[in-house]
Amino acid sequence: MLDVAFPAIRQLIADRRPGHMLDAPFYTDPAVFRADLDLIFGRHWIFVGVEPDIAEPGDVMTLKIGDNSILICRDDDGAIHALHNVCRHRAARLVSEEKTSVGRLVCPYHSWTYGLDGQLLHAEHMNADFDPACHGLRKVHLRSLAGLLFVCLADDPPADFDEMARIAAPYIAPHDIANCKVAHQIDLIEEGNWKLTMENNRECYHCALNHPELTASIFEYGFGFDANEDEPGRVAQREHYDTMVAELGAKWNGCGFPSEETGNLQNMISGYRIGRLPMDKDGESQTLDTKVACARLLGNIMEKRLGDLSFHTQPNSWHHLMSDHIVSFAVLPLEPGRTLLRTKWLVHKDAVEGKDYDLENLIQVWRETNLQDGKLVGLAHAGASSAGYIPGPYSPQTEGQVEDFVAWYIKRLAAFFGP
Amino acid sequence: MLDVAFPAIRQLIADRRPGHMLDAPFYTDPAVFRADLDLIFGRHWIFVGVEPDIAEPGDVMTLKIGDNSILICRDDDGAIHALHNVCRHRAARLVSEEKTSVGRLVCPYHSWTYGLDGQLLHAEHMNADFDPACHGLRKVHLRSLAGLLFVCLADDPPADFDEMARIAAPYIAPHDIANCKVAHQIDLIEEGNWKLTMENNRECYHCALNHPELTASIFEYGFGFDANEDEPGRVAQREHYDTMVAELGAKWNGCGFPSEETGNLQNMISGYRIGRLPMDKDGESQTLDTKVACARLLGNIMEKRLGDLSFHTQPNSWHHLMSDHIVSFAVLPLEPGRTLLRTKWLVHKDAVEGKDYDLENLIQVWRETNLQDGKLVGLAHAGASSAGYIPGPYSPQTEGQVEDFVAWYIKRLAAFFGP
Amino acid sequence: MLDVAFPAIRQLIADRRPGHMLDAPFYTDPAVFRADLDLIFGRHWIFVGVEPDIAEPGDVMTLKIGDNSILICRDDDGAIHALHNVCRHRAARLVSEEKTSVGRLVCPYHSWTYGLDGQLLHAEHMNADFDPACHGLRKVHLRSLAGLLFVCLADDPPADFDEMARIAAPYIAPHDIANCKVAHQIDLIEEGNWKLTMENNRECYHCALNHPELTASIFEYGFGFDANEDEPGRVAQREHYDTMVAELGAKWNGCGFPSEETGNLQNMISGYRIGRLPMDKDGESQTLDTKVACARLLGNIMEKRLGDLSFHTQPNSWHHLMSDHIVSFAVLPLEPGRTLLRTKWLVHKDAVEGKDYDLENLIQVWRETNLQDGKLVGLAHAGASSAGYIPGPYSPQTEGQVEDFVAWYIKRLAAFFGP
Repeated sequence: MLDVAFPAIRQLIADRRPGHMLDAPFYTDPAVFRADLDLIFGRHWIFVGVEPDIAEPGDVMTLKIGDNSILICRDDDGAIHALHNVCRHRAARLVSEEKTSVGRLVCPYHSWTYGLDGQLLHAEHMNADFDPACHGLRKVHLRSLAGLLFVCLADDPPADFDEMARIAAPYIAPHDIANCKVAHQIDLIEEGNWKLTMENNRECYHCALNHPELTASIFEYGFGFDANEDEPGRVAQREHYDTMVAELGAKWNGCGFPSEETGNLQNMISGYRIGRLPMDKDGESQTLDTKVACARLLGNIMEKRLGDLSFHTQPNSWHHLMSDHIVSFAVLPLEPGRTLLRTKWLVHKDAVEGKDYDLENLIQVWRETNLQDGKLVGLAHAGASSAGYIPGPYSPQTEGQVEDFVAWYIKRLAAFFGP
Repeated sequence: MLDVAFPAIRQLIADRRPGHMLDAPFYTDPAVFRADLDLIFGRHWIFVGVEPDIAEPGDVMTLKIGDNSILICRDDDGAIHALHNVCRHRAARLVSEEKTSVGRLVCPYHSWTYGLDGQLLHAEHMNADFDPACHGLRKVHLRSLAGLLFVCLADDPPADFDEMARIAAPYIAPHDIANCKVAHQIDLIEEGNWKLTMENNRECYHCALNHPELTASIFEYGFGFDANEDEPGRVAQREHYDTMVAELGAKWNGCGFPSEETGNLQNMISGYRIGRLPMDKDGESQTLDTKVACARLLGNIMEKRLGDLSFHTQPNSWHHLMSDHIVSFAVLPLEPGRTLLRTKWLVHKDAVEGKDYDLENLIQVWRETNLQDGKLVGLAHAGASSAGYIPGPYSPQTEGQVEDFVAWYIKRLAAFFGP
Repeated sequence: MLDVAFPAIRQLIADRRPGHMLDAPFYTDPAVFRADLDLIFGRHWIFVGVEPDIAEPGDVMTLKIGDNSILICRDDDGAIHALHNVCRHRAARLVSEEKTSVGRLVCPYHSWTYGLDGQLLHAEHMNADFDPACHGLRKVHLRSLAGLLFVCLADDPPADFDEMARIAAPYIAPHDIANCKVAHQIDLIEEGNWKLTMENNRECYHCALNHPELTASIFEYGFGFDANEDEPGRVAQREHYDTMVAELGAKWNGCGFPSEETGNLQNMISGYRIGRLPMDKDGESQTLDTKVACARLLGNIMEKRLGDLSFHTQPNSWHHLMSDHIVSFAVLPLEPGRTLLRTKWLVHKDAVEGKDYDLENLIQVWRETNLQDGKLVGLAHAGASSAGYIPGPYSPQTEGQVEDFVAWYIKRLAAFFGP
């Protein structure tokens, strides 16, 4: 209700020092957090889940973006709708479960009844001048990008989603998300601001010290290279990596799997980056032994060694798509210092647990990696909350995508706050 | 300490759309909540308990209205006093228990000692110029309406309490509250704003779907009727109800039990409504089998089938008085989204548990009904907290008393905030 | 980020009524609490621990002052440093344990490595233009007053610490804190504002009613005397006390133990009071039987009956130094209504538990006394949070040091807020 904080936020935006972390209030101040929910999570395309979350007609999924509870419903014709989970009569939340399957949406308070597209079908005790057509559930914009579901709470969503979708869909389509199932989901609460969760995701400088499971398959070079490094072994390793990228990329492109890195994380409103990168140790998948976790490959894929199709979107998601499985991550802010990281593991819908894949083997690498990252995010938030905190410098070599994220964030806030 | 929110609240008051729920900040904003505590709960008559709560000289009850801890004490002469539970020396809370019995009020910090009327009787180590008469406990205005206790924290309490008392006392007096005992009390915390608890109480549109126990005895028609309803069975049922109201009312009036519905929920400062209504199924009492729960009837009552004397007061209470027992409800706000509902079940003081009444049978209907309502209030608060929320329309037929409450609330706020 | 509260605080300062408790917002308002952290705890010398907490080279202790995590480190040369516990790269908290022992400070996020004096020794992946000398850990001012450690978070700490140290060090030095060990520590969280914890400590008016263990050895007269008291027994007791103070003081002074009470609690920025006071019942130490708790006396002390060297500092500490042991108390605010009281019991480093001292006998008196005081602080905070609260009068006879503390606090705030 109060906007006394606005001039202070405008000043903070103006004071941002490029190449460095943000000033403390960006991570800790409740007024900035409200601005983040309103302007970033309220006016951009937010990744919320995948088509297999609501595979069948009547399937309903709920989720929260800030205080907004959203319904994602599949109607009898197979169409997907995003709706506000609030009855138009006396405000009751319509669905409380995270997932359910229903014929119609019936309010538990006074039985107002809606279709899965949000249309009001029945309301008792209202006068003759009451118009049901004006009392349907409020709609939320929704898009499926080759099976990845994005919503936008604003009336006028950013138009450049279409540009991102046009480029990214051909990369993602061969992994055939519509014919996947969600084999597992983990909700992890990190004790830090959501932007620290994002910053943590956008570099691998911390991987060697912290992620023994992930570094079995991942190359840290995907995030940038230290050109001044004078250890000869390191330079050789990087040259080997560059060769792999070129050779494997050419091969994958030739087989119908677009691979070249592209996108614009900093200057598009719907900022993104996509590219298919090789794995370390001639690996097939992000598992401990770098072999595929699931014998049934995705879609019509025949080749196990397809690398890692890495898809990053601003402000809140990243995805690893491999020949055999997909891992999708959604970041949802809860409080200035608490963030939900929701991770879904997808395999082909016909894959059978225990036969085609072992669940523990499938989820182990990222379950552990997330826990490790969550701890680091907590330490960074504790530090950024201290009066002793000074925004430090990002490595120009290995933290370029962190700067991309932070610069994108500042530009987006500035677009609303004005100069 | 801050009043930056005042212009915003004034605007919200001006924007209120009659016949509809309130805008979201009325339910969720901490600044509005502070205004509610100051202006509604700080300047109106608040129902806090019953005379049997402090039956004997020396009995003390404590309760909280917002952050204010209040003592209700019965002194040696049987007089009842309401006092602030704060020592005048170093601020210590004098009594921490909800109920106790004492000779004098002795502060646990430095032994300052007060009478049960609040007078300072003893304070060590103070200079000769210290005047004990200026350091008694601060008094709170208190009234007993035929045994129902109301307090007002303001210096000048609303004068129209006397008008309400003049009308309502003859209805209540035959139930002889002074000679009752509190057979049971349940404190239920509802996860919603206190106004949603009140709105929920003021209609029975939701009863059929949610309250199997209560609808054994209650007629939903007591809250209004859908004149446009064209189901013939429903019209017949309503006509039957109207006939019962007229016939039973005439009979009860003739026996000294005033029955006609009266009061003014919307335009009096001490808004209220009182009336004796028939029960469904020729019922005697609000129990599962609609028979009296207690063999020993109240006061000098001889007739079991006295209907339900329903007494509603703004801003925070309702009461059902029957031939054999009374159920009293006090609503006390804790946080914008948390509310205490305190329910007391009263029977004649000579009634013996296990012989005259079975406790489970006595409390079952309203214990379950409260739990059901608490859940609905939580769902409504969750919805009203969402950006997807739009204030919905009240049914003109069955939610008239909800509108009465909300319109009363807006008028009372407006009286303090000015135009 | 917001300073809308400043005019309100300035008015509250101006309105303070001498000789009385503070107005409620000083105890309960979040804006005042932030001012307390910034201006009182951020710009004065705060007691944080003792040299024996970090006895050996490489020892590190962490503690929090508000949201600031501070490192106290002893380097290889035995020098002690206070540093902000925040990495200069990506803000991670460097040390999470309360106590540890390390060779260097290595950040768990990206391995930036610092010496125990805070110097940056190593940082990977930074460009050639990166200057490690500009990226050392930020220093915090630190002083040891005869083994008691004080830090100041401000750039320019109050200069009169030196005056306090010059006077107080000769009193404290014979107790030889550097050659003590911390035999026990208890962290107690009190449900009240930190100033209520301090006010509670600065009088013994409440002792007789509340502290059966402490009053075995302590004289309440140390805090002031009721000159108007007309009970003859009380006057005789006081005269006996005055004679003891004179006689024992002369004796102790003669043996090299300065005793006379001195200091200035109200007008120095680093306000303090120190003095050696006799114990009741010819006591030796603050134990239940008033005998020494530890057979090995401190430093070169030969005389068990050395009284109680009582040292109070504004804003957050008090200490009792006896012939055999020391008890030190640090008050650290957590929230407007939550305060950490950290108590350390020190004995000679060569004393052996079970042989020279029994731990239960050593800590019993103050463990119980703290619990009793914590309850009283909670009651006072509950009362001060009530709308029924009016600031009460301090006893001019026995609560003079409470007034000293409160008057000091108001002067210090006024110095920053201006007239």
